[in-house]
Amino acid sequence: MSRGLLIVVSAPSGCGKGTILEQVRKRHEFYYSVSATTRAPREGEKDGVSYHFMTKEGFEKLVSDNGVLEYASYCDNYYGTPRGPVEEMLAAGKDVVLEIEVKGAMQVKEKCPEAVLIFILPPSVDTLRHRLNKRKTETEEVIEKRVAEAAGEIAQSVNYDYVVVNDDLDEAVENFLTVIKAEKMTVKRSHALIDKISEKGDNKL
Amino acid sequence: MSRGLLIVVSAPSGCGKGTILEQVRKRHEFYYSVSATTRAPREGEKDGVSYHFMTKEGFEKLVSDNGVLEYASYCDNYYGTPRGPVEEMLAAGKDVVLEIEVKGAMQVKEKCPEAVLIFILPPSVDTLRHRLNKRKTETEEVIEKRVAEAAGEIAQSVNYDYVVVNDDLDEAVENFLTVIKAEKMTVKRSHALIDKISEKGDNKL
Repeated sequence: MSRGLLIVVSAPSGCGKGTILEQVRKRHEFYYSVSATTRAPREGEKDGVSYHFMTKEGFEKLVSDNGVLEYASYCDNYYGTPRGPVEEMLAAGKDVVLEIEVKGAMQVKEKCPEAVLIFILPPSVDTLRHRLNKRKTETEEVIEKRVAEAAGEIAQSVNYDYVVVNDDLDEAVENFLTVIKAEKMTVKRSHALIDKISEKGDNKL
Repeated sequence: MSRGLLIVVSAPSGCGKGTILEQVRKRHEFYYSVSATTRAPREGEKDGVSYHFMTKEGFEKLVSDNGVLEYASYCDNYYGTPRGPVEEMLAAGKDVVLEIEVKGAMQVKEKCPEAVLIFILPPSVDTLRHRLNKRKTETEEVIEKRVAEAAGEIAQSVNYDYVVVNDDLDEAVENFLTVIKAEKMTVKRSHALIDKISEKGDNKL
């Protein structure tokens, strides 16, 4: 059995990453990594589903044991991806999706060079601004701040492997699946297959 | 406009490369490179369609002028891929397919690192032997020689970018098109797109 694919997905807020992944999941089975955090559970959050809730000491020990693929600290709390479950799934031939920020993605890229990094792009920064405006949940100032952040993040997409533009949702989902399918045909992931096929069979030769 | 994709395709004889490409062509427009050769035209062959027919001196001058992407000599004649028309098509945004042997593919890989190399595999060497036997056009000895050659070529597929197994024809065609589509989403081919999208637009920022 061939090893699963480790897929890292990032996108600026407002790019529809969640919706794309939801649709992708309906058509391609993958394990969705659950992050670990030291922040307190909010109402309704379940341990092991929303997050793996951990103590600060526990998290720090995990990090020092090389037990996370990436982590960051945000508002005095740690957030990270535990390595164990991801490794298990990959070894069992299951594809794994990590939905993480640019900095985390760069950490994963360093630790797991075989990971496939996909960046979801808006059709343009103007479209993104328009989408955020339409939500009417934030002031113009906040929106402009998020647009500026998005532009900075988009510039960092050059460190990823693929870009998928979310203009039309169905097309973006299709393109995401295309990337996964093509990656499985890369020679670097097909050595076992090539070895198997090049066996001359029947010992005739 | 983005540059076209240079697609190099190789396969051992009997793997259905021609049939796959014929089907692919119906669904994806690409320019099919016409080889140059110094051998004499056979009946019915048209210059510029079957081959570009050239004199030995003309071919050697083309090679020394860096005017071929790859070439080889076979039965005292040269065969090669003229660079000019390929470059023109790529610059015009058209995808180009080169259907060439392993040695030629390695020459193209060196000259054009941006080329995508696809190797078409049989499901197994035994299947290949079976397919060649079914044709009933060759002796068992000839078939075994071709099977041995195929096994050697398959082992060299590790120097390609992708492998597409031709078990079911429709699936192989689909997979070939998937590779082309995914390659167009790679970050290395999307720098212009990323630059365009990360422009903040409207000079608002």
